[in-house]
Amino acid sequence: MSIVRVHNFAVSLDGYGTGEGQSLEQPFGHAGSRLLEGFLATRSFSIIHGGSNGSRGVDDALASTWAAGIGAEIMGRNKFGPQRGPWTDEEWKGWWGDNPVFHTPVFVLTHYPRPTLVMDGGTTFHFIDATPQEALRLAQEAAGDLDVRIGGGPTTVREFLAADLIDHMHVIVAPIILGRGVSLWEGLEGLEERFETEVVSTPLGNTHITFTRR
Amino acid sequence: MSIVRVHNFAVSLDGYGTGEGQSLEQPFGHAGSRLLEGFLATRSFSIIHGGSNGSRGVDDALASTWAAGIGAEIMGRNKFGPQRGPWTDEEWKGWWGDNPVFHTPVFVLTHYPRPTLVMDGGTTFHFIDATPQEALRLAQEAAGDLDVRIGGGPTTVREFLAADLIDHMHVIVAPIILGRGVSLWEGLEGLEERFETEVVSTPLGNTHITFTRR
Repeated sequence: MSIVRVHNFAVSLDGYGTGEGQSLEQPFGHAGSRLLEGFLATRSFSIIHGGSNGSRGVDDALASTWAAGIGAEIMGRNKFGPQRGPWTDEEWKGWWGDNPVFHTPVFVLTHYPRPTLVMDGGTTFHFIDATPQEALRLAQEAAGDLDVRIGGGPTTVREFLAADLIDHMHVIVAPIILGRGVSLWEGLEGLEERFETEVVSTPLGNTHITFTRR
Repeated sequence: MSIVRVHNFAVSLDGYGTGEGQSLEQPFGHAGSRLLEGFLATRSFSIIHGGSNGSRGVDDALASTWAAGIGAEIMGRNKFGPQRGPWTDEEWKGWWGDNPVFHTPVFVLTHYPRPTLVMDGGTTFHFIDATPQEALRLAQEAAGDLDVRIGGGPTTVREFLAADLIDHMHVIVAPIILGRGVSLWEGLEGLEERFETEVVSTPLGNTHITFTRR
């Protein structure tokens, strides 16, 4: 059965999934790379980005589940790029180069649709103005028997959680206090009641929490 | 050397150290006992409250460090009781009965001082209207060579963190989303830079984070 999954989604101790002031230079705003540090150290991250180094422990095992069995991703426009409002530059094709890491259809939620981008390696960016339910229907159609990943950012994950559309979520709590940014948890009081949670901390200093629908 | 410590301070994933709506019936407001669950299961908690049951694992080892070497506590008035504003009922002597768990002088921060309460077992409640620095000076004087514990609630711990008066802090992250309440982390952006952090999750589902001054 096809399910809806979130992977490698890092938050600070105060619950922010990204910092303030996202820009071309700072995709995570003032958070810089601090939220990603545990993930950056893993072999899986390295391989996704064309390398072959990195840790092979628990962090890597969890990180490696990101790609397997995924047939489509849904992401928010703020993950796709730093632009806001109407597209002024359709040259922007995401942060991930000509051969993006996804290798599946990717549905980008935006109030400003633009033509589909066919990239190398199987990634196709579709720009849609849709509710979470509508977007998920399109993504599931594209994914066939495979799962759909909700790729972030925090606003998008939060909306899918609020709509109770997520079956499995892997969150990494980084031991930092960002102070400001976009909260993953806002408006989700009692979320844990819908999920079994499992927690593991690792020598790299990450705390992984998995939420699996009850 | 005498240091300033915080122990067994539980927060939700969204950073709340207590819920909304504290009352006589609900000392932690709508959080109920959910923030304390990991701690409640330990032998140390049981012993503090006159019992002898409970777990003996990592959670208990960490919980047991709460009392050793402490010569005085500072707490906020909201930890002492649910009343706000001028004292209308000086009969209230805290949540902990005639023989409170502290067994040391306890300095209760309040804008409404009242006479000192001498309890059984060595606990004395002093009610003081003081800055964190002034309160700490009094508590350190009372503690002699021993350490001072900042006992909470979240507003008090946050104020002492903001004033950089805390040397060691043990936080328990409970895998729940409270949605509302009193934040421990608000205004503390970058706090981790002043501390070495160590993280361990346990089979009881707690994540313990210790902050030790660099």
